[in-house]
Amino acid sequence: MPSYRPVNAVLRALKVLNVVNSRRQSTVSEIARASGLTSSTAVRFLETLESAGYVLKDTSNAAYVVSGKVLELSSGFEAYREMGVIAGPFLYALQREISWPSDVAVFDRDAMIVAETSRSESRLFYPRPPGFRAPIMGTSLGLAYLAFCTESELQTAVEVSAQVAEPWNDLARDRGKLQGVLARVRECGYAVMSQEYSALVYNRAIWAIAVPILLAGQAIASINVTMNREVSENEATSKYLASLQRTAARISQAIDKARHPSG
Amino acid sequence: MPSYRPVNAVLRALKVLNVVNSRRQSTVSEIARASGLTSSTAVRFLETLESAGYVLKDTSNAAYVVSGKVLELSSGFEAYREMGVIAGPFLYALQREISWPSDVAVFDRDAMIVAETSRSESRLFYPRPPGFRAPIMGTSLGLAYLAFCTESELQTAVEVSAQVAEPWNDLARDRGKLQGVLARVRECGYAVMSQEYSALVYNRAIWAIAVPILLAGQAIASINVTMNREVSENEATSKYLASLQRTAARISQAIDKARHPSG
Repeated sequence: MPSYRPVNAVLRALKVLNVVNSRRQSTVSEIARASGLTSSTAVRFLETLESAGYVLKDTSNAAYVVSGKVLELSSGFEAYREMGVIAGPFLYALQREISWPSDVAVFDRDAMIVAETSRSESRLFYPRPPGFRAPIMGTSLGLAYLAFCTESELQTAVEVSAQVAEPWNDLARDRGKLQGVLARVRECGYAVMSQEYSALVYNRAIWAIAVPILLAGQAIASINVTMNREVSENEATSKYLASLQRTAARISQAIDKARHPSG
Repeated sequence: MPSYRPVNAVLRALKVLNVVNSRRQSTVSEIARASGLTSSTAVRFLETLESAGYVLKDTSNAAYVVSGKVLELSSGFEAYREMGVIAGPFLYALQREISWPSDVAVFDRDAMIVAETSRSESRLFYPRPPGFRAPIMGTSLGLAYLAFCTESELQTAVEVSAQVAEPWNDLARDRGKLQGVLARVRECGYAVMSQEYSALVYNRAIWAIAVPILLAGQAIASINVTMNREVSENEATSKYLASLQRTAARISQAIDKARHPSG
């Protein structure tokens, strides 16, 4: 619970900075209109932002542009940290419900970066801490994501993975087979860890299923449930798939809410 | 001249946001210390930033991280606009001093993007408005930049240019020759437009010399002077090189000052 009311001047200045970012160049009156401020208030914030180096005024046409210093305001963003903070509570709730641990991960070229995990509270302890890079083509996290991501992310993953000589990357080198695997993931709504990955990394002791976390129809992450090999695919899907999908939907809603706070 | 005093709350909140960006995760006391605020003031700004969606609080360890929304605060940054706004007055002053026009440009993979030009006020009117993409390997702007840029930018420029079938890109396909050209640029302190580019684009009527704009020893842009073919290289360097270099140094200082305002 917040202890204070938000500082209005700060919210308005950030709004002004957002408006300057959203256009190639903007006059004071355009900025005032788009941010719902009077011109003199807009000028006050623009001059504040200018004094701190975030915007520049073009003296030739009195228009404002953002400066290179704005890059510092986003330099620390890492998608997997945002996802980890937001998904964490949902992951632990799921672990308490179904007793098997889960990981949530975001896409990064040739790997899914683990953002959060509930493995540390589970009976299956193969540590995969936040920041761990799970290979795209071998894991259920990667395949669930790939089946619902953008075409350009798919291209990147295929190109980069094809160059890495792991057995599960044969999928990246056989376009027809990959299309078949992804079509099946879309049809079933979940992906399964590859046999090669399970054998090489877990000596077949562990396998996993995963579903995408969708926002506006597009994958923004994926979430798995990892189990030992005694659990069959039938048992896994009948007992855990619905809970996994419900958790994915809740995380998606929480991400959406965090990015668009009503306050 | 600013009409108002900067709004202090805004400057402090931006400082807090910068601190959160600069660390993987930060507690309130770390943020307060790094931004020179009391803990209660830091919390007030953190909660304001959280209410607007720019930071997230990790409930498991009470640490703050930046959210994906911070990307909006820098989404409009284009290096060539910043450079254009800052370099403009210096470019026009140079044009009045030496009577020939100049362009200033920033690197973008396979091209130098013209940020500002004084051609419109000159007797040599071949328009190259801001946003124009001058090919790296053919132009003095590109070669002056390449000789003083980072190794990874050089690699990118060579790889991308080698795939484009323009005669000046033969340089990108002959690594030994390119090394020789860049070594000569470093030795002389300036680059010359390639014969091929002058012939194909200006029918040999125009040529140019360029120098890098350096910041902390690294090229951040380049600036040329364009002349008609009657001006010899000897005449150009003896009459204009010193003015060109002085202008480059002034632009560098102005960029540095804009990025680190003392206010």
